[in-house]
Amino acid sequence: MIELYSANTPNGLKVPIALEELDVEYRLIKVNLSQGEQKRPSFLALNPNGRIPVLVDLDGPGAQPLNLAESGAILLYLAQKHGALLPQDPVEYQRAMEYLFLQVASVGPMFGQAGWFLRSAPEPVPLAIERYRNESLRLTALLDERLAEVPWLAGSSYSIADIMHFSWLRIADYAGVDLNQFPHVRAWIDRISARPAVQRALARLQN
Amino acid sequence: MIELYSANTPNGLKVPIALEELDVEYRLIKVNLSQGEQKRPSFLALNPNGRIPVLVDLDGPGAQPLNLAESGAILLYLAQKHGALLPQDPVEYQRAMEYLFLQVASVGPMFGQAGWFLRSAPEPVPLAIERYRNESLRLTALLDERLAEVPWLAGSSYSIADIMHFSWLRIADYAGVDLNQFPHVRAWIDRISARPAVQRALARLQN
Repeated sequence: MIELYSANTPNGLKVPIALEELDVEYRLIKVNLSQGEQKRPSFLALNPNGRIPVLVDLDGPGAQPLNLAESGAILLYLAQKHGALLPQDPVEYQRAMEYLFLQVASVGPMFGQAGWFLRSAPEPVPLAIERYRNESLRLTALLDERLAEVPWLAGSSYSIADIMHFSWLRIADYAGVDLNQFPHVRAWIDRISARPAVQRALARLQN
Repeated sequence: MIELYSANTPNGLKVPIALEELDVEYRLIKVNLSQGEQKRPSFLALNPNGRIPVLVDLDGPGAQPLNLAESGAILLYLAQKHGALLPQDPVEYQRAMEYLFLQVASVGPMFGQAGWFLRSAPEPVPLAIERYRNESLRLTALLDERLAEVPWLAGSSYSIADIMHFSWLRIADYAGVDLNQFPHVRAWIDRISARPAVQRALARLQN
């Protein structure tokens, strides 16, 4: 049995999508971020970093419970445990890893900072808005070029790299990115959004 | 044979340390970032994102050359190919992954932004400096608590998670973080700095 501590945010969406795609049953425990539940001692015992998502696999290594934080680590753990959502071809496998890390290192942080300075900062900072919005646009253009060549980020098969990027790109507007400029990303989002597993994940997080 | 395109930066240091620890021969091709060599067509053919490091393994999957970007993906590829620098114990293995992704998702981006606003921004932005410096301090405190309990980030063994974090923490001052406040991180840096492989990597990058 899997317990998932998550919330309706871009990083919070990644793991429910993967679990639904893998057809794994899980108990979703919603963490109320605006009430600071992720900073309470009971949550910090699972992840001292005080961030969602956290997965608890009651059937972890040695049949013992395993708690695991960081969406990238969780998706890789689930994909490897279930032998799915990663390419069989060894070169495409490495391409999946490359795009997965591009999301974690660049797309997530830069979209996050762009959105914060555009929408949440206590005062306007044009220098920061321009810095992060421009980098978000550059990264989206990079993904658009990739998706002009291949249907999925790893190449020919849908993988955890797509799930990682989808969760942020679907709300690109948050970072000031207009997807009408990026038709290949737009079409890829539409293809992923139409997947029943993705619709189930969104419904569970939003309800 | 391995070819490594890199430079003397925190992200550029990670792969040379891993290769030296694994005792793998490699040709180091230094990329002159200030001259924009990472944006030239010949480099973009290896990594369209225009960032170092890029590894080219001439003996990749199927005995074909593999080019791979993103330091996290490269370290994971090397550790798995050589069966080293990752814990044997399955729980410690997942802890290594968790800390590896913490570095990529948070420590790297936040230290990077703190340093840029402290040192390179065209105008002072107190809001941004405070935001990123405080987050860098919070993350360093988190690592300090971990290293008060265990000698290495994964637990009992040195791993690619330590290499990932070391490359940024050794220059914590860049992000406005005074390591005198974090004695366990300080001692861990000293232990890693004393490793012959680390000294060889630094010497090759700096010369």
